[in-house]
Amino acid sequence: MDHLSRQQQLRQVLQDERLDGFVVTHPANLRYLCGYTGSNGLLLFLDGRCTFFTDGRYTQQAREEVRGARITIAKGALALAAGARMHARNGVQIGFEADLTTVTAAAAMRKAMPKNVRLKPASGLVMRQRILKDAEELQLIRDAVQLGAQVYQAAMQAVRPGLSESAIAGRLEFAAREAGADGMSFETIVAGGKRSALPHGRATAQPIPRRGFVVVDSGVILRGYCSDMTRTVHVGRAGREERKWYEAVLEAQLAGVAAVKPGQLAGEVDKAARQMLRRARLDRYFTHSTGHGVGLEIHEPPRLGKGQTEELRPGMVITIEPGIYIPGKGGIRIEDMVVVTERGCDVLTPVAKELVEI
Amino acid sequence: MDHLSRQQQLRQVLQDERLDGFVVTHPANLRYLCGYTGSNGLLLFLDGRCTFFTDGRYTQQAREEVRGARITIAKGALALAAGARMHARNGVQIGFEADLTTVTAAAAMRKAMPKNVRLKPASGLVMRQRILKDAEELQLIRDAVQLGAQVYQAAMQAVRPGLSESAIAGRLEFAAREAGADGMSFETIVAGGKRSALPHGRATAQPIPRRGFVVVDSGVILRGYCSDMTRTVHVGRAGREERKWYEAVLEAQLAGVAAVKPGQLAGEVDKAARQMLRRARLDRYFTHSTGHGVGLEIHEPPRLGKGQTEELRPGMVITIEPGIYIPGKGGIRIEDMVVVTERGCDVLTPVAKELVEI
Repeated sequence: MDHLSRQQQLRQVLQDERLDGFVVTHPANLRYLCGYTGSNGLLLFLDGRCTFFTDGRYTQQAREEVRGARITIAKGALALAAGARMHARNGVQIGFEADLTTVTAAAAMRKAMPKNVRLKPASGLVMRQRILKDAEELQLIRDAVQLGAQVYQAAMQAVRPGLSESAIAGRLEFAAREAGADGMSFETIVAGGKRSALPHGRATAQPIPRRGFVVVDSGVILRGYCSDMTRTVHVGRAGREERKWYEAVLEAQLAGVAAVKPGQLAGEVDKAARQMLRRARLDRYFTHSTGHGVGLEIHEPPRLGKGQTEELRPGMVITIEPGIYIPGKGGIRIEDMVVVTERGCDVLTPVAKELVEI
Repeated sequence: MDHLSRQQQLRQVLQDERLDGFVVTHPANLRYLCGYTGSNGLLLFLDGRCTFFTDGRYTQQAREEVRGARITIAKGALALAAGARMHARNGVQIGFEADLTTVTAAAAMRKAMPKNVRLKPASGLVMRQRILKDAEELQLIRDAVQLGAQVYQAAMQAVRPGLSESAIAGRLEFAAREAGADGMSFETIVAGGKRSALPHGRATAQPIPRRGFVVVDSGVILRGYCSDMTRTVHVGRAGREERKWYEAVLEAQLAGVAAVKPGQLAGEVDKAARQMLRRARLDRYFTHSTGHGVGLEIHEPPRLGKGQTEELRPGMVITIEPGIYIPGKGGIRIEDMVVVTERGCDVLTPVAKELVEI
C-alpha cells in the first residue's frame, strides 16, 4: 500500500481546509493512512510531521506495521497533548474526526490540549479519500468478493430443512476461516421461512423450514477488505406468487445495477430499483435503501438511498441490494457488489441470481 | 428479563441526577432496558413515559422484542425531536450517553430538539446498573462461559504444528455456531510461537510452529451474553525458562483471583497479580491491565488496572487475565471469568490452568 502518498494527499486536504493539523483515531482510517491494524492508535498530523501513538500492548505491532510516522508509546488524549505541545503555536487549529469521536473523548482531548491549540470538528476528510479505491484496493476487494462467493456456495450445499440457521452460518464462516479470511465483515444473516421477512435476521437456532424463502447475507474480510453479498433461495417448490415476488426483486436489482455509471446521483440508483418494485406494487415492502459503499469497512459512503445527491465516480465500490419483506410471509433480498467504471460498472459478485429451489 | 424494573430503576437514577428525561441509543443499553436487539434504535424516557423509535427495517423486530415502551417508526434525531416536542416544557433537561454518542450525532440531536429542551451529557447511567448482574443475567453468563470452555476444548484437540492459526480459530468458531452461539464476543486470538508475544494477535494464516507457546483467547455470545477466556499451551516440551515464565503468570493469575472480594478496590486486584510478576522480575512484560467487566458487552466496567478505585461488589463479573509478552520469544496469558460473591468470588471458567504440552 502506498501509505506515504495517502498521507500526502491528506496533507493537501488539510491545507485546503485551513487546518494546521489533524488527529486520526478511527481504526479503519489508521489502517488506510499508515498501515496500523491494532486498536487504540492515534495518528497526529502537525507541521508536516506525522506521529503515531499507541499503548504498551501494541509496541511490537506498531513497529512492524506503521509506515510514514514516528512511533511513540503513550496513551490517547495525553499522547495527543504531548504531541501537540511540541508544535504548539498560538492559534493552531487541529481537526478531529467529529463523526467518529464520542462527546466524552472529544472533551478529554480538549482538556488535555495546550490552551493555544484549537480542536476543530472535521468529519469525513479521510473518508473522502477512501471513497475512491485505488488499483491495489480494487484487487483486494475483488479477492474478498471471490472468497465471499466461494464460501457462500460451499455453505449452500448444506442447506436442507431441519438444519439450523446457525449451522449454515457456521459452515459458511468455517469455510471462510479455512480459506484464510481475517474474519467475517458482519454477523452472518441466515433467515428462513417467516424469519426471512426480518431484513436483519441474524442466524438463530431455528431450523430451516420444509418450505419457504431463506435469505443468506454474508461477507468476509480478507487482508482488511470486506465483501458483502446476499442471495435468497427457496426451500421446496416456490408457488406462483412467490415466483412473482422473486422476479420483482431480481428486476429491481438489475435495474439498480443498470443505473450505475459515473455522474449518476446515488439517489437515482435507488429510484431505479424502487420503481421496478412499485410497478409490481411491492415498493411498500422495500423498507431500506438500495445500497452502500464497501471497503475497509462494511458500511462506507456513498449511501444509495432516497434523495442522496452524491455523484458516483469511477473507483467507488458499492452494493446493489433491494429487498422486500412481507410480514408473516417471508422476504427476498438480492445483493451484488459493483465497482463504478469509466463507462458504467462491473458486477464483482460471481454468483447467478436466478431463483434456486432446494 | 425484568425490563420494567430496569426501566423503573433508571427513572430513579434520572430523578437523582435531576434529569427530566434521557435518551438511549447504545445497542447494549437498549437491549438491557427494553429487550431490543437490533441496531438503530432510540429509547426516550420523558415524563414517566418510555417511547422506542426505530426505522422501517426493524418494524417487525421491534414489535416482537420491545418491552415497556410505545413503538414509533421514525428516524434518529428527528424521532427524538418529535418525542421531545410532545413533552416539551421550558427548561426540560434530557440526558444523553455522552460517552457513546459521537460529536456529530450529538450536534444533530441538539439541532433537532425544540429550543426549550436542553440536552445534557450524562455518561454511564445505564452502565451503573448493568455493572451488577442480576440472577437471570448470572445464569446466562454461566451458560456462555460453559459454552466458551467447551468450544475451546474442542478446538484444542486439533492443535498441531503446521495447522494455521486461522484453522484453529475456525474450528473453535464452528463449534460455537453448532452449539447455538449467537456469534463470537470478539475476534478470536490464536497466536503461535513468536506471535504469542503480541497481546492481541488475531489468528492469521501462519502455521503453528513445531515448538513454542500458543495463546488462545476467545469468547462466545450466547443469548446476548459474552464469555471470555484465555489459555496458553506449549507445542513441544517447554524448556526450564519457559516453565518458569508460565508458572509466574499462573501464580499472578491465582493471586489476582484470590484478591477478588467485596469492598476490594479494582486497582488492588491488579496490584496483587502484578506483584507476583515483579517477584519473578517479569512485570515489565505485563503491558496491560489485569481484567475488565463482562456482560452484554465484552469490555464493561470495572477496569482492573493500576490505581483504579472502583470497589468490587457482589454481582460484578470480571476477567482476571495477567500475561507476559517477551518480544522475539513469546507470550503467555491465562484468563478466567469470575463473579464477585458475598464472601469472595467464584471462578466461572471450568478449564484447568496447569501447563499443557502438545
